[in-house]
Formats: sequence, C-alpha cells, structure tokens
Amino acid sequence: MIYLDNNATTKIDSKVFLKHCEVLRKNYGNASSLYPIGVESKNLIEDSRIRVAKFINADLNSGDRVIFTSCATESNNAVFHSVLGQNFKGQHIIISEVEHPSVYNIALYYEEAGCEVTRIKVNTNGVLNVSQLMDSLRSETSIVSLMMVNSETGVLNDIEDISKKIRQSFPKVLIHTDAVQAAGKTPIDINLLNVDFLTLSGHKFHAPKGIGALFIKRGVSFNPFIIGGHQEMGLRAGTENVANIVALGEAAEIAQKGLEDGINTGIEALRDYMEQELKRLFPDSIIFGEQSNRIGNTTNIGFKSVDGTKLVLRLAQKGISVSSGTACNSISASPSRVLSAMHAPSEYIRSIRISLSKENCMSDIQALLSSLNELI
Amino acid sequence: MIYLDNNATTKIDSKVFLKHCEVLRKNYGNASSLYPIGVESKNLIEDSRIRVAKFINADLNSGDRVIFTSCATESNNAVFHSVLGQNFKGQHIIISEVEHPSVYNIALYYEEAGCEVTRIKVNTNGVLNVSQLMDSLRSETSIVSLMMVNSETGVLNDIEDISKKIRQSFPKVLIHTDAVQAAGKTPIDINLLNVDFLTLSGHKFHAPKGIGALFIKRGVSFNPFIIGGHQEMGLRAGTENVANIVALGEAAEIAQKGLEDGINTGIEALRDYMEQELKRLFPDSIIFGEQSNRIGNTTNIGFKSVDGTKLVLRLAQKGISVSSGTACNSISASPSRVLSAMHAPSEYIRSIRISLSKENCMSDIQALLSSLNELI
Repeated sequence: MIYLDNNATTKIDSKVFLKHCEVLRKNYGNASSLYPIGVESKNLIEDSRIRVAKFINADLNSGDRVIFTSCATESNNAVFHSVLGQNFKGQHIIISEVEHPSVYNIALYYEEAGCEVTRIKVNTNGVLNVSQLMDSLRSETSIVSLMMVNSETGVLNDIEDISKKIRQSFPKVLIHTDAVQAAGKTPIDINLLNVDFLTLSGHKFHAPKGIGALFIKRGVSFNPFIIGGHQEMGLRAGTENVANIVALGEAAEIAQKGLEDGINTGIEALRDYMEQELKRLFPDSIIFGEQSNRIGNTTNIGFKSVDGTKLVLRLAQKGISVSSGTACNSISASPSRVLSAMHAPSEYIRSIRISLSKENCMSDIQALLSSLNELI
Repeated sequence: MIYLDNNATTKIDSKVFLKHCEVLRKNYGNASSLYPIGVESKNLIEDSRIRVAKFINADLNSGDRVIFTSCATESNNAVFHSVLGQNFKGQHIIISEVEHPSVYNIALYYEEAGCEVTRIKVNTNGVLNVSQLMDSLRSETSIVSLMMVNSETGVLNDIEDISKKIRQSFPKVLIHTDAVQAAGKTPIDINLLNVDFLTLSGHKFHAPKGIGALFIKRGVSFNPFIIGGHQEMGLRAGTENVANIVALGEAAEIAQKGLEDGINTGIEALRDYMEQELKRLFPDSIIFGEQSNRIGNTTNIGFKSVDGTKLVLRLAQKGISVSSGTACNSISASPSRVLSAMHAPSEYIRSIRISLSKENCMSDIQALLSSLNELI
C-alpha cells in the first residue's frame, strides 16, 4: 500500500511504537499511586511533558503549562470551555471560515447558546483577511482561534504577525492556535507565535491516536474541561494514559530532530516534484493554495470535472491512499467547506488531497502519477 | 513485585496487549477515510462496539448506543453535560456522598453554577440511604448518578432496585451509573439495571489506560460533550483511538468469559481467606463494608492507630503495592471522603485498600500477610 494521506493520520514511528508497547506492558501503575510502579508512571509523564514543552519552546519553569488530553478535538473544546466559562452569553468569538470542524463546530455550539461568532474570510489562495479580523475585534471579543496550518490545503497562517496586531489593539483577547497540522512539519515556537493556547495531536506526527496536548501560557487562567480527580495539575481529570503520553514525548523529540536535520526539505522537494509533474500531465488542473505560503507536504488538486471521491476510490483499488477533502469529511457528499470559502470553481471543487510524510519516497509519487494518468 | 491495587488500575491482559500492538502498528488508517486501511479501522471499531455492547447486554439493533470515550471521567462528564444542557440553573442533581471524584466534583461544578445537589448518605456499612434518595426526588430532578460498586470499599449498590423505585415515582428522571468498578467483577446487564447511562473504563479490567465507554439507552437523547467531527455517530468527536477501542472490546470479551468461567469465585475465595487471616492476626482491625454486599476482590482495612499512607510506603519497600484510599486521593493527606461518610472511627480511618485480580495467587496473599505481621 502507498499511503499518501498523512494529514488525516500518520503511521506510528517504529521507535515510538516500541516505546509505547514497552510502557504499556511494564509501566501499568497508576500515576497517582505511592508505590514504585506508580511513581515511575508519574516520572514518565513528567519527562514526556518536558519533551513536548521543548518541542514548542515552552518554559515549564516559568509557568507555561503543557497538559495531556485525549486528542486535539478535546484540547480545542477545552480552550473554548475555559475561555467562555459558564456565563458565555454575549461573548464574541473570532474564528476563520476554514477552521477544522473541532473549532468550527464548537464556535457554532456557542453561537447557538448566545455567543456571537465572526468567521474571517479567506481569499482564493486561502489567505486570511487580516483586515476583516482587525475590524472585527471589540471589547466583547473573548477569543480568537485560528489554525496554524490548514489541513486541507496546507496554507500557513502567519500567527506571529496576527498575534502581534491583536496584542497591540486588544491586549486582553485570548489567542488560540490549532497547530495540529504544523507539528513536525515546521518549527513551533510559542514565544514567537505569542499565543495563549496551542493545540497538538499525536497521530499527526507519528505518535498513536488518542493523545493530544494543550499548551497554556504562563499567567493565563484555565478552568478544566474534564472534571474529576487531581490529575494533570488539576487541569485535566482522568487516569493518565501513560503509554500514549510517553509516545507523544518520544514522537515530539523525533519530530524536533527531524526538523533540525532538514527531513522536511526532502519531503517538500518530493512534493514539489510531484506538483510539477501533475501540472505537466494535467495542465488544466488547479492546485489550491499554490500561490500561498504552504506547508511542504500537502497538495490539494482539482482535476477539471473529475469527482474527487470517485478518484479516491479508484486510487484505493490500485493500493494508493489519498483523501478527498479532510478525512473528517470524506464520507460526506457535500463539497469541502474550505474550498468553498476559497471560491473554488465548481468543476474543480471535488478535489483530492495528497499529503506526504517522512515515510514516502519517489517510487510512491511515481506510482501515484502513473495511476492518475491512467484514471483521468 | 506483588501488585494488589487492581481497583486503581490493572495490568494489561497479555492477549489484549498483543491485539492492541498489532492494531497500533498495522491498522493506522483514519476510520473516516474511504480507502481500505481506513475502512478496516472503521470495521474494527464497529466490531469492538458489538463486543462491548454484548458485555453489558445492550442491544445496538434496538437503538441502544455504546460510544467510546477517552476514560470513565470523560464518560461521566459527558452524561452530566448532556443531561443538564446549557440552561442548567435550577436543575436538581442527586448523587451519593461516596461517589468517585469524577462524579462528585462534576456535581460540585454544577452546584457552583446554580444547580441544586443532594448527596445521599450512607450508613456505617457503606449502604445507601434509599429512603433519603426517594424523599429527595422532585419534579426539578434531572439526574440521579450512583456508582454500581464503591471503588474504596467494594460495597455494591442495588442499582436495579433503586432504578425500579425511581421509575415508579419519577419516570422522567434520568439515571446514570458509574460501573467502572463493577466491570469484569460482576455481570452488568443494562436491562436489569434499567439505567439511561452507564460508564465503563478499560484500565479497570485489563485493557489499556486511555479508553472508556458510555452506554446510552435507546430513546434517550444525547448531546455530545466533545464537539467537532462526525465520529462516533456524531456523539463524540475526535479521531478514533482504534488500537485502544479494539483492546477494550477484546478485554470485554475476556472479562465476560472470565465471569462465565467463574474466575471471580476464585478471586473472592482468595480475598475471603485473606480477610479471615487478617482478622486472626489483627483482631482489633476493621474491615469497612464487611457486613454489606461487597464485590469479591476488595478489602478496605483499618488497623487501629496505624497510618495507612505510611503503611503503603513500608509495604512498597517490600515490593508490595496496595493503596491508601483511592489512588486518586493517595497523595492527599486528608482522610478518605468515603470512609468519613461511613463515620469510620478516627483511629481506623487511615486504612489501606487491597484489591485483587485474576493475576493474583495465594503466595501474593501470604507475602502480604507476613509483611503486615512484621510491620504492624
């Protein structure tokens, strides 16, 4: 099988896999327990917290916090729950039109409950309308939540610049970025980004599914979303998933090393070669977000009058896995909300997304190109 | 190491471990994806859902639902969130004084937000005051949440009888039971229990940490707690943790077979032998809940004027793992809320909890008895 859907999920890294299984078998102690096997679990968790903090340049000693959650969706829910509190009516939320459902639908939930939501538009290249964002800010604005990298197109938002602008005029507004699609693909530095909250997901960078993290900036108050025991410094209740937490730390360290070693340059070169060939073979195709600052592993391409979902299924028959839209929407028949927001032409909107990882090589791309050439 | 703290967490079953690791390595496809590795993940999840449903005698074909969550604490939060909704002020909640923090503290959260909470008392044997419960019910009562088995003492609540009584006088009140400490130790039949919601946790019956389930009765409406994508029939967003879901199904099947094969009779016999010896060696000790209907694996014993926490640490030095109070409270210096509710005498309240599983044998008990004999 040729797996080219790494924005949906990634294969677990073999080192992460071994570490996960070792901890799962041996370190089964409850991290709240006083005896050695419990204390070891606690230590493993704290060690992993340090690794994840380092991955995003957070400083735990200065009051920055990293908490482990079950997934990015939980992290995103937790941020909105904490910021908006129990008296959410009348509060103002800013997101973008192209957010992941885990932000888009939470905003919708609060909108139905009496919050006001502004959804920032993007242009045909998927670039955020920062002027609209700045004009939308007001004293009732509680939170601005913008993804760092779009999952469907790979388009990067300049969170650093946006945060700077927001802080200048509305210093009290809390800023959240869902960095799920950035992790492992581009460096994440919470000091440069200057955000209050940042979301990570393990399975997007070769850790297992079922583990996420949430960064909470020093000085920013946080009310737990999942309430119960005292775990995670009282910020996230529930017996800690030690094996997955360790796996996340391991994956973060590997991803960081990968970034330092320039692995992503190789992935980007492969992607660029693929796009060059795609344009040669299918001159009337559209690569969405091509003109924008994009992450190096993602290609979202519409072939004129070709139904992406059907194409995905035909490619699957040939052993090639790509996605139509985000995985979360792949069963749905309606066109992508993200591409609609980008005003994608109707003959092109049913596109496919090809997303690479360090596991891919040139022969994967050649197999894809030859299959597409045959099918289209 | 002799592990006697199975109410805090259990060692993963070796069959469950192998299955988990196999799925984690091979079946990394996103269950929302259309290509084979995604569809396989989806099928694995649905197969596991059937197994878990069977374990509690739920009928998925009749509209009963089982959703996978990240832990029991999340399941419990989800129930309260769904039942109380966004207009929770003025609603009435009934729990017991001896609930796990994941129910007790959620009720507290809603109390601070304007709900009214009644906490049903227990007697010195840990038995619920059902008369108080019945007298507390009123038209504003939205939910009654009572654990099936107490985690600290093993005392069983007769949920079947309580549900029957509630249904007779207040048929609209929703009933939830946290069955975390019952699973694998006694049969769970949601039809006999006649509850609307039931919580399970994997790591309490030899599945990994980081996986729970929530049963929702046919016809009962449910508003998702974690909002985002369409996963879990739209009832719990977030990319599914396929490996842990499969592990939970496997563990449920093994636990069910264990119950049928009478494994728990053996565990209970071991526990009863241990208690008999403890009473012989320490005639002035108190076994909490001894006079009540208790689960067969748990002994909560107070030794006169002995500090349980210190005893736990001394036993740990001898390679024996037991708990003082619940694991969740084991770092805390304050006496157990559960034993306080049972009016445990102050010289006995700093007890230890010994909780067995299928992994324990007679030599574990003998080692514990001989160590206690030496230390006390």
